[in-house]
Amino acid sequence: MSSDFQPASGFVLPRYAGIATFMRLPHIGLDDPRLAEVQVGLIGAPWDGGTTNRPGPRHGPRQLRDASTMIRAQHGITGVRPFEAMNCADLGDVAPNPADVQDSLRRMTAFYTRVRGAGIIPLTAGGDHLCTLPILRALAAECPPENRLGMIHFDSHTDLFHSYFGGQMYTHGTPFRRAVEEGLLDPHRVCMIGIRGTAYDSEDRDFAKAVGIRVIPIEDFHRRGVEDVMAEARNIVGTGDTYVSYDIDFVDPAYAPGTGTPEVGGPTSWQALECARLLRGVKIVGADLVEVSPPFDPAGGTAFLGVSLMFEMLCAIVTAHQ
Amino acid sequence: MSSDFQPASGFVLPRYAGIATFMRLPHIGLDDPRLAEVQVGLIGAPWDGGTTNRPGPRHGPRQLRDASTMIRAQHGITGVRPFEAMNCADLGDVAPNPADVQDSLRRMTAFYTRVRGAGIIPLTAGGDHLCTLPILRALAAECPPENRLGMIHFDSHTDLFHSYFGGQMYTHGTPFRRAVEEGLLDPHRVCMIGIRGTAYDSEDRDFAKAVGIRVIPIEDFHRRGVEDVMAEARNIVGTGDTYVSYDIDFVDPAYAPGTGTPEVGGPTSWQALECARLLRGVKIVGADLVEVSPPFDPAGGTAFLGVSLMFEMLCAIVTAHQ
Amino acid sequence: MSSDFQPASGFVLPRYAGIATFMRLPHIGLDDPRLAEVQVGLIGAPWDGGTTNRPGPRHGPRQLRDASTMIRAQHGITGVRPFEAMNCADLGDVAPNPADVQDSLRRMTAFYTRVRGAGIIPLTAGGDHLCTLPILRALAAECPPENRLGMIHFDSHTDLFHSYFGGQMYTHGTPFRRAVEEGLLDPHRVCMIGIRGTAYDSEDRDFAKAVGIRVIPIEDFHRRGVEDVMAEARNIVGTGDTYVSYDIDFVDPAYAPGTGTPEVGGPTSWQALECARLLRGVKIVGADLVEVSPPFDPAGGTAFLGVSLMFEMLCAIVTAHQ
Amino acid sequence: MSSDFQPASGFVLPRYAGIATFMRLPHIGLDDPRLAEVQVGLIGAPWDGGTTNRPGPRHGPRQLRDASTMIRAQHGITGVRPFEAMNCADLGDVAPNPADVQDSLRRMTAFYTRVRGAGIIPLTAGGDHLCTLPILRALAAECPPENRLGMIHFDSHTDLFHSYFGGQMYTHGTPFRRAVEEGLLDPHRVCMIGIRGTAYDSEDRDFAKAVGIRVIPIEDFHRRGVEDVMAEARNIVGTGDTYVSYDIDFVDPAYAPGTGTPEVGGPTSWQALECARLLRGVKIVGADLVEVSPPFDPAGGTAFLGVSLMFEMLCAIVTAHQ
Amino acid sequence: MSSDFQPASGFVLPRYAGIATFMRLPHIGLDDPRLAEVQVGLIGAPWDGGTTNRPGPRHGPRQLRDASTMIRAQHGITGVRPFEAMNCADLGDVAPNPADVQDSLRRMTAFYTRVRGAGIIPLTAGGDHLCTLPILRALAAECPPENRLGMIHFDSHTDLFHSYFGGQMYTHGTPFRRAVEEGLLDPHRVCMIGIRGTAYDSEDRDFAKAVGIRVIPIEDFHRRGVEDVMAEARNIVGTGDTYVSYDIDFVDPAYAPGTGTPEVGGPTSWQALECARLLRGVKIVGADLVEVSPPFDPAGGTAFLGVSLMFEMLCAIVTAHQ
Amino acid sequence: MSSDFQPASGFVLPRYAGIATFMRLPHIGLDDPRLAEVQVGLIGAPWDGGTTNRPGPRHGPRQLRDASTMIRAQHGITGVRPFEAMNCADLGDVAPNPADVQDSLRRMTAFYTRVRGAGIIPLTAGGDHLCTLPILRALAAECPPENRLGMIHFDSHTDLFHSYFGGQMYTHGTPFRRAVEEGLLDPHRVCMIGIRGTAYDSEDRDFAKAVGIRVIPIEDFHRRGVEDVMAEARNIVGTGDTYVSYDIDFVDPAYAPGTGTPEVGGPTSWQALECARLLRGVKIVGADLVEVSPPFDPAGGTAFLGVSLMFEMLCAIVTAHQ
Repeated sequence: MSSDFQPASGFVLPRYAGIATFMRLPHIGLDDPRLAEVQVGLIGAPWDGGTTNRPGPRHGPRQLRDASTMIRAQHGITGVRPFEAMNCADLGDVAPNPADVQDSLRRMTAFYTRVRGAGIIPLTAGGDHLCTLPILRALAAECPPENRLGMIHFDSHTDLFHSYFGGQMYTHGTPFRRAVEEGLLDPHRVCMIGIRGTAYDSEDRDFAKAVGIRVIPIEDFHRRGVEDVMAEARNIVGTGDTYVSYDIDFVDPAYAPGTGTPEVGGPTSWQALECARLLRGVKIVGADLVEVSPPFDPAGGTAFLGVSLMFEMLCAIVTAHQ
Repeated sequence: MSSDFQPASGFVLPRYAGIATFMRLPHIGLDDPRLAEVQVGLIGAPWDGGTTNRPGPRHGPRQLRDASTMIRAQHGITGVRPFEAMNCADLGDVAPNPADVQDSLRRMTAFYTRVRGAGIIPLTAGGDHLCTLPILRALAAECPPENRLGMIHFDSHTDLFHSYFGGQMYTHGTPFRRAVEEGLLDPHRVCMIGIRGTAYDSEDRDFAKAVGIRVIPIEDFHRRGVEDVMAEARNIVGTGDTYVSYDIDFVDPAYAPGTGTPEVGGPTSWQALECARLLRGVKIVGADLVEVSPPFDPAGGTAFLGVSLMFEMLCAIVTAHQ
Repeated sequence: MSSDFQPASGFVLPRYAGIATFMRLPHIGLDDPRLAEVQVGLIGAPWDGGTTNRPGPRHGPRQLRDASTMIRAQHGITGVRPFEAMNCADLGDVAPNPADVQDSLRRMTAFYTRVRGAGIIPLTAGGDHLCTLPILRALAAECPPENRLGMIHFDSHTDLFHSYFGGQMYTHGTPFRRAVEEGLLDPHRVCMIGIRGTAYDSEDRDFAKAVGIRVIPIEDFHRRGVEDVMAEARNIVGTGDTYVSYDIDFVDPAYAPGTGTPEVGGPTSWQALECARLLRGVKIVGADLVEVSPPFDPAGGTAFLGVSLMFEMLCAIVTAHQ
Repeated sequence: MSSDFQPASGFVLPRYAGIATFMRLPHIGLDDPRLAEVQVGLIGAPWDGGTTNRPGPRHGPRQLRDASTMIRAQHGITGVRPFEAMNCADLGDVAPNPADVQDSLRRMTAFYTRVRGAGIIPLTAGGDHLCTLPILRALAAECPPENRLGMIHFDSHTDLFHSYFGGQMYTHGTPFRRAVEEGLLDPHRVCMIGIRGTAYDSEDRDFAKAVGIRVIPIEDFHRRGVEDVMAEARNIVGTGDTYVSYDIDFVDPAYAPGTGTPEVGGPTSWQALECARLLRGVKIVGADLVEVSPPFDPAGGTAFLGVSLMFEMLCAIVTAHQ
Repeated sequence: MSSDFQPASGFVLPRYAGIATFMRLPHIGLDDPRLAEVQVGLIGAPWDGGTTNRPGPRHGPRQLRDASTMIRAQHGITGVRPFEAMNCADLGDVAPNPADVQDSLRRMTAFYTRVRGAGIIPLTAGGDHLCTLPILRALAAECPPENRLGMIHFDSHTDLFHSYFGGQMYTHGTPFRRAVEEGLLDPHRVCMIGIRGTAYDSEDRDFAKAVGIRVIPIEDFHRRGVEDVMAEARNIVGTGDTYVSYDIDFVDPAYAPGTGTPEVGGPTSWQALECARLLRGVKIVGADLVEVSPPFDPAGGTAFLGVSLMFEMLCAIVTAHQ
Repeated sequence: MSSDFQPASGFVLPRYAGIATFMRLPHIGLDDPRLAEVQVGLIGAPWDGGTTNRPGPRHGPRQLRDASTMIRAQHGITGVRPFEAMNCADLGDVAPNPADVQDSLRRMTAFYTRVRGAGIIPLTAGGDHLCTLPILRALAAECPPENRLGMIHFDSHTDLFHSYFGGQMYTHGTPFRRAVEEGLLDPHRVCMIGIRGTAYDSEDRDFAKAVGIRVIPIEDFHRRGVEDVMAEARNIVGTGDTYVSYDIDFVDPAYAPGTGTPEVGGPTSWQALECARLLRGVKIVGADLVEVSPPFDPAGGTAFLGVSLMFEMLCAIVTAHQ
């Protein structure tokens, strides 16, 4: 392991000091020659053009970087030291077009195609949930059907709707409908956990059932407990390539108020962490933490929970790839 | 069912758009000819003249209306669609007199008397807890003693005190003492759940015991669990007419910071929702959600939890009346 | 004058009570038969799809309605009572498509075309500044060239740029470039006041100069004073039909923090009010107050200043049309 | 001068440390034997039962005490050291009855009667503006008509209305109507400065004119400047006993957002301070700073401006009494 | 019991009124003759000079006093009335030197030495966690080795590090390392509960293991439950003199956001209260509640939880000493 | 000019996107080979160990960097394009020791000595005002007495006190006393502008008078106006090397609430900008903007004003050095 990829220690430079990169890692842009050494890339997707309700996730990456400087080097329970296990770096932000959905999707797909081409596992900080679609397009491009991706999806919404506003096909409520339609995901290897809240209708869940997506609603989550639910999730995705998509609104809004479409009655922060910790053994080829909306969370607690979850996912990634 | 009573869909008009009525329902004032068709009336009681500590619930109805536009048409777990089951409408706000307690109580009693006269079940957004007294006066008026109302009361306080400040009989700490004295409630059919916090003394609980009110304190709630507690509550109120009064300070202040007299150590939002969901079968003749104080909750999370609870109670109402 | 168009008095219903419509006026949708009597329509444009920086103006109309309930019936200095002078109503919100710029522009143009068709002067609460473009399209449609609109524009930015992000022609930085190109505005009758802040380059001001738009930058504003500047502005627009577009970021961010692209060094609230008051005599055919972004102004002071400016503009409208 | 009445120095005990009393003065209750030595008493009136709009001034005294610990011993411009000039003390709070207007007025009158009886000049931190009425009742009790008090009143409202809500005579919009009717104030020696904002009607100003109260509206204030306005005010009250009532909403809400009924377009903090500084020579027999509402000002800037104004008034008091 | 040590009742003086002392107790400084009667002293330690990350606990005592006025006289579950059981008073704040760590430690040791000399049990509101070191120095001074103190320590961090920033031995991450080295604590009678979060390395836990300190990390806490953990803790400290140190960051940041070094995944408020309640039987010679940082908690919920925990500890103290 | 030193354009990458460096400039650490090309270095000094009142400036640099991404390339009034005029870069943060004043001063002096050695003009974002002392030590080191630095100092405090807390010589209230004593500044070429607020005593101003420092208090500033005051200031410092120290509390707290020791009655943002703009012609060898305290300014307006002032100073620097 190269010492170039170690975060600055809070014992040397106080954690509130210094330019804020993800987890105090070096910033290595896509044109940087050191890119070739990077194994896990932390990336910001500052875009919320798919948001149908309260905006703000475009500001997520910056606030998550700020909060991430409070993350230290070692997992408190497992002892994993991810920055020693793999070369991790902050690859910067993908540049969106705030006023054009399709242009932004193209830009993101292009960015992640380069990341994939460099053999880097992307760990993304959103952005709204539509950001996951171009990431999946890049990661699943040219996959033969039998190699489509599995997905473990933590959220209070399925994001499986057909369209909004009389035909709008690309919003943060539709990415996984599109991903299934486009053959990026293998629906039989998709598990959605924590779904709850009032519903427009049952169209999304009917679609899930029709294509074979497993939805574990919140009442089952609370009844069964984290361990049982995660055992099922790991079983569903099996040993194939799997993407992990973590919408911060999975967590109860008391823990994560800074998001655009909160739903009450969710998991605690401890349960949220456990879910991510129990990804162990999953072959993660990419992961994201989306929908952190700083304008609705001035105190920043949501961002700190978000980066704590990113750290859990990072530990799961390095464990799976060792 | 009339299509006139359907809320605007977020698929057509984004949920942050439009004039904010409760749950995006039509606004039908007491003088509106459509009033005759209304079956459940959502009403604001913007008054906090009974508050002995931190004020603000006068602003509750407006913030609750704002947050309520994030409520959709269908219950996520039970599938109940209340707006199709019964004609629901926003009846507007009762006009209080902010500087006169007795005048305000009279105005509220008069308003709810008209509502009851129209055969409408009121679901009220407070206001402080003293607002419940004039509602009970209207709903229980001319009841023969054997038909006095039962009540399920979620709160961290009993609100059963005799008086404050050297003889002040009407504050938000006394409504249920008055309601029992006035013969509005049948104390043997009253169950109070979640009582906690430091106490002045035991005067309120002594009164409860003396008249036969059942108090389930928080330590029992945590030990027994929601299902067991709610089974007892349903048993206590039985099949008679029952009022449900839900003080938002029942919920832990991490989930509901926007209230004037918080007490730590309360239920989670999931437990709070379950309590309301387990009202099924109760013959609800009126319900309220009180003590949401926006000035102490600028982020609005308390209001969103509040309207989520109102939606649960609404589903219980329509289920009971079908 | 019909008593149907009077706002509720704060002496009867406290100002924080009741469903929040603009200035407590009746809500009259475009399909309401009373529309024919309306002379001035207050309209919300809850859309910020043209925002290139910090989002949030989509939430402006609701917060402006909330704050507007603190507006009373009579101007404190001039004694004008606008609600007695003309029939004013809240026409509700235009329904945007949050995820599609062109569709939203079309929807807004269609809405304002109906408003214009009903002979109603629109006073709009934005939304971001791109909202002004479809309003101008509706108001200037089929104008012969000699009747193009004049405009008095208060702002810290010219909004005259050609494009952003490599060719994006429709953002809140470009509406008046488009409006001139489309022949909606007569550039020789356009005056922009308060322009300031750091600049990308001089492209916008070069365009202004080339087409004849008068730009009064902030240093001239501070040096000359409000009366002198407004005299020039009135002279520029003359007696022809004129639109007034008021971006809240015209005012210093100490007075109006809730906006997406603040620039320090602006006018005080008193100067901001005076500017609007000195519109007297201008033949206003429409006006707006845009770029109020509630997520960046939880205390709501920006919204209250915004509606105070809307009230000044309303008084100018009724004065001009009497 | 006794050293017992000196505030703790920030050079010894940091200003954020210690129990917060007004300006770090000793707390001397009405039953304390040292009361006899007190010459100026700083008093809290934690009551807002007369508020017709947004509540909160009941929390004013505590936040003002907190902010007041940032006040030091010497006036920066005049060099006055008030705590050496007269014996000043924090007399604590008068105990109101939050749920009864008349009882609260009686309690306050009784408290200030004792203060007056002890020969102490009261400098009060409100509380809403109705608190001034019982203070005037105590200070003007048994005055022969020719000795009624004069008053300099800084405010954006006259507080001269007859009644609210269909006959409510005692609100924070009526105290000076009552004070004139009760013969506490000599209207020809009353000057109101800064009046502005939208109006219900002209009833208050008509009353002022009828009884001879001088109202200097904001447009005159801005045109004439502080020195000229204050010269007139001093001339109006002359050499007789004068009360000074300072409503924080006199100042523009950018400087003082924490108040219940803000009006935009007001003075700056510098002008606000100058007004108080130019009270020199006025024979002040009591003064107050009212309507600071902490729930609408979490950052506390309003309270710090409020105590800065109280310090200016204190310096004016000690100067007048030397 | 003397009536001089009773807090003011909220039935007489509203709880938001009056000068804020801890739990509305009388303020008795170290030079006050009544000091001799005090048995439990509530003390503020407004100092955060040992903070390595986000500052602010210097403001803790004042905000905790403010919130503490919502505490009433009687424990809701046990019925304990601590202010009748022992003479409690607010001893004011120790005066720190904000710009000198060693001088501040000396000042605090001197203050607590006087408190101990007066036979008073100190219950301290911090301040950062380094404040505990000088308290222990005062309480354990001249203890024979066999009488060194035991400690129950609730925290998400061990605070057992050797040094920071290249040799800085005195920070809020090192107090218990120093306390063990200085022979103040008996490590075999020390139990740390709730430890979690990412780690720099294992140096602190290695030290704990080496000297015999028992660390119960958060995963064990969640697995075993409060009762089992507290039974072990009580067993570890046994019947000897024991100090209780309660860092508010023990609690999950959803419940206690106002702290400088939050760690997600912690206990709920109910669990936090239970921990303190289950201190019964422990021979507490002093206790503290530290690391409440008001600038990161403007709503004050953290402070109210903090004082609720202080009340629990106070009840444990009076129970142990009866 | 090298294109390597150009900030990213908001027309390409939205201004809220990307890792936040000062004004979107490249980050060039002291060990970076490109350091040799840098002419102006923007530096963060995240330290507030000298703060005697409310803390937080340690968080200033990060929030200032965040807000600085809203700064564009060209001055709106003068047309200066500083990034084309000189090579500007973000040099990162100096690493302080939060728990040791002397060690922090040493670290800062060493850092700035390297900066000066590289021939770079430092433009610093504090940090509290004590940070200026080590900067002056580095810049004035080995100056012959006749070349001591002049200084223009904008502030509401002189920071000329001898000591605090019984002998504490190094706080943010003492840096310029030390700087004069150490021979770093030529007091006859020092001008302090805006001094105001209550005072402990006159010790600081007596010292100023004794050594020849010119103090222009706020009442003179308001009376004379910015142009006249700045003409005098430029005259005082003359043509010699001059440092500019800008404490954000110079500006009125309505414009800059996020600071630890606010004083009301200060300049507006326009006056604050003008002051900096009128530094033209001054031979600036270093400048700073200090005392921005983000925990007291969650909305970030203070930081945006701060970086706007930094941009003005940067333009003054490049103008002086061309």
